[in-house]
Amino acid sequence: MRLPLALCLFAVTALPCFAQKETILREYEEFLSIPNVAADPAGLARNARWIIAAFAKRGVTMRLLETPGTPAVVYGEIKAPNARRTVVFYSHYDGQPVDPKQWNTAPFDPVLKGTLTDPEARLFARSASDSKAPIMAILAALDQLKGKPLTQNVKFFFEGEEEAGSRHLQTILEANKQLLAGDVWLICDGPVHQSRKQQIVFGARGNRSVEITLYGPSRELHSGHYGNWAPNPALRLAHLLASMKNEDGKVLVKGFYDGIEPLSATEKRAIAEAPSIDQDLRKELLLGETENPGMKIEEAINLPALTIRGLTSAHTGALASNVIPATAVASIDIRLVKGVDHKLTFDRILAHVKSQGYFVVDKDPDAATLLSHPKVAKVTSNGGYNAERTSMDLPISQKVIAAAEGALGPVVKLPTMGGSVPNGTIADALHVPTILVPICNHDNNQHSSNENIRLQNLWDGIKLMQGLLAMN
Amino acid sequence: MRLPLALCLFAVTALPCFAQKETILREYEEFLSIPNVAADPAGLARNARWIIAAFAKRGVTMRLLETPGTPAVVYGEIKAPNARRTVVFYSHYDGQPVDPKQWNTAPFDPVLKGTLTDPEARLFARSASDSKAPIMAILAALDQLKGKPLTQNVKFFFEGEEEAGSRHLQTILEANKQLLAGDVWLICDGPVHQSRKQQIVFGARGNRSVEITLYGPSRELHSGHYGNWAPNPALRLAHLLASMKNEDGKVLVKGFYDGIEPLSATEKRAIAEAPSIDQDLRKELLLGETENPGMKIEEAINLPALTIRGLTSAHTGALASNVIPATAVASIDIRLVKGVDHKLTFDRILAHVKSQGYFVVDKDPDAATLLSHPKVAKVTSNGGYNAERTSMDLPISQKVIAAAEGALGPVVKLPTMGGSVPNGTIADALHVPTILVPICNHDNNQHSSNENIRLQNLWDGIKLMQGLLAMN
Repeated sequence: MRLPLALCLFAVTALPCFAQKETILREYEEFLSIPNVAADPAGLARNARWIIAAFAKRGVTMRLLETPGTPAVVYGEIKAPNARRTVVFYSHYDGQPVDPKQWNTAPFDPVLKGTLTDPEARLFARSASDSKAPIMAILAALDQLKGKPLTQNVKFFFEGEEEAGSRHLQTILEANKQLLAGDVWLICDGPVHQSRKQQIVFGARGNRSVEITLYGPSRELHSGHYGNWAPNPALRLAHLLASMKNEDGKVLVKGFYDGIEPLSATEKRAIAEAPSIDQDLRKELLLGETENPGMKIEEAINLPALTIRGLTSAHTGALASNVIPATAVASIDIRLVKGVDHKLTFDRILAHVKSQGYFVVDKDPDAATLLSHPKVAKVTSNGGYNAERTSMDLPISQKVIAAAEGALGPVVKLPTMGGSVPNGTIADALHVPTILVPICNHDNNQHSSNENIRLQNLWDGIKLMQGLLAMN
Repeated sequence: MRLPLALCLFAVTALPCFAQKETILREYEEFLSIPNVAADPAGLARNARWIIAAFAKRGVTMRLLETPGTPAVVYGEIKAPNARRTVVFYSHYDGQPVDPKQWNTAPFDPVLKGTLTDPEARLFARSASDSKAPIMAILAALDQLKGKPLTQNVKFFFEGEEEAGSRHLQTILEANKQLLAGDVWLICDGPVHQSRKQQIVFGARGNRSVEITLYGPSRELHSGHYGNWAPNPALRLAHLLASMKNEDGKVLVKGFYDGIEPLSATEKRAIAEAPSIDQDLRKELLLGETENPGMKIEEAINLPALTIRGLTSAHTGALASNVIPATAVASIDIRLVKGVDHKLTFDRILAHVKSQGYFVVDKDPDAATLLSHPKVAKVTSNGGYNAERTSMDLPISQKVIAAAEGALGPVVKLPTMGGSVPNGTIADALHVPTILVPICNHDNNQHSSNENIRLQNLWDGIKLMQGLLAMN
């Protein structure tokens, strides 16, 4: 089945050929089999070592930028003589937590479903898309470039804490300002357009996650003997959450939409020109309706969002029993757009919870606190970062578009993506434009179980990275 | 440490003595070590066999009343010559589901915390209170009676499906009307008064459990890329639940309180005379306030209640990830009072869900159903039963009170308990008065993890059962 490597030499422009694909996939499976969740620092360190070794094979020396309390950044450079500019490639090698029970295959035992020649085949593993894929694509692109001299300096910056909120990123950037200077940061993260067209995106939403815990009786009570008398934290949580957002998708937290920086004419035009995917997406996802009815998805993601990402209180289903729960917990994800500060937003959430009659604490409340307040809420946050948007009209923006279109043909251009990458932190710390060059399929289950990458996205991603590395 | 049995013969009135307690506890631990959850029919059958063997040791022949699709009832009789009446003792040997992760000790490996001589010591195991305790108390009471002839016929009826909603009870009762006839059914289930005083209770609330599942996207979506566009089932659930009950405890489902049979003067007086426990309970349970403020708990349980007993949607805490959940589930427990039918109440819940814009199904909806309705809810129920209340003024009611007070001194008398026992089903099928004679402590964690019985409750329960068996 394996073709001799020599056969591939004639096929460089239609890259990658079958044998190359096989080699790439084998190497990628090795990378994906190393666990990369925040709860496993040793696993993250193994990932970092793997990346260093893989770049060393391509003649690129990488090293660790270490900071206490966080996985190391893997960093390296390719210097060009008389370089026109310096381009920094950003990605991250850590992944979201996994709940193996919910996966069809083990999250760190990569499985290819389909054949290597099928562009629709998918490789399943945690971080197969988010965001080891761009790192693998860069490695394969370096192979394709075969040591051809570059006309720009290239730097690589691979973070290990993105899925945990990039809490140390600002510190790392500020401690290494000289080292990390460049003309543009290319953020290699996130999915391509839902139409499967390549997209170049000039911003990303900011992010702040919030967890709210409400308290009922100090132990679960029999719902018969105490139902109507003991307050129910699950009911209170329902009221609190309902007070935060209406069913049409409008957030009711005071000030939530204040300060939004309006879209420019170019940005509005780019949104209007993006292929319309709402109806196809709605069918694919079996949605009878959407939030913010009448709003195109590319438009909706230019507003801040408040999403309940999880609810827990006692049990449902076969494990449900007749109790009044002792606690009820909601995990909330907030997405922000340019002009809205994540710290201010968190303060507004706190003020909202207080306005609903809660005494707010940030640690588990003691008995005296619970007894002396009718309603107590624990509200915590792991921090967050702000949204950032680069102008599409900058020369470097146009250059990146041209390089992408040179590699893959016409691309979709959008002012922001819905997801968050720490481009705001990067722009703030280094005063540098950031542009997103995602490569993964949109239907990749990233952040959920059965994460995967569609093979054609990986092959296209390699071409794109080759084009961006060789940008003149 | 063990006293010879002979030493106990002098101590019959102050029963049980230390050696007897030790023997009772050893036998009870054996009983509690047999798993008794609905998901384990073989375990339930072992429990039934254990009960038969234990009664056989006391010279009482028990047998199984078998009905397809449900654990057998364990049934037996003690016949008295020239019996004044026939009294039927009801209990159940099945227990609520267990989640061993939430228990401090294994649920079916009984552990005594404290010493046998300490009345406050507790024995921990699933069903230690609910409701193997009365069965054990009857066994020990038979030992104490030492074969003394009874003046009434006694029948025993131990169900195996109570915690699963007694779905076959009506069928069983109607198939065995002659066999199960009696002048009163004594329902040996539930806790004594929260003041730790013995209580005799003349009714119980009815019960209906309901599970509601709401649907978002057909797979979990990235909350960044789709937040503001894909509908969130957890948010919808919050709105739906908030529409069902306000934070003061008032249920907003239309007709929920219709038809309630008013309390009689005797019943109102009994409630007023019950020791006031609200403040002590509030402190014990660390509650800053209670639902239905200003209402005594004994009064609040004379109203129907709607309790959210569990919520599930994606994850919270360390497993939370940035997704829009695919489903959100609420498990709801409804308690009913006399005059309110459980089927009618379920219909009212369905009508309420529909009134909130949902297309309601009773099975997992298919793609066409999801796509053709803006909002879809699956609403299911395992059935239920109605509340029942026996008049306190009946001669048999007064006789039972006298027997209990003869055994234990003054007792609390209440028109209803908050929990549910299938006394309504029994009264409907057999046209017989039902009276509740609970023995367990109120703080027994029944239906939750770490269920336990306080030893003094077991010893008092044995005295009470002895008094009721020997009632003249």
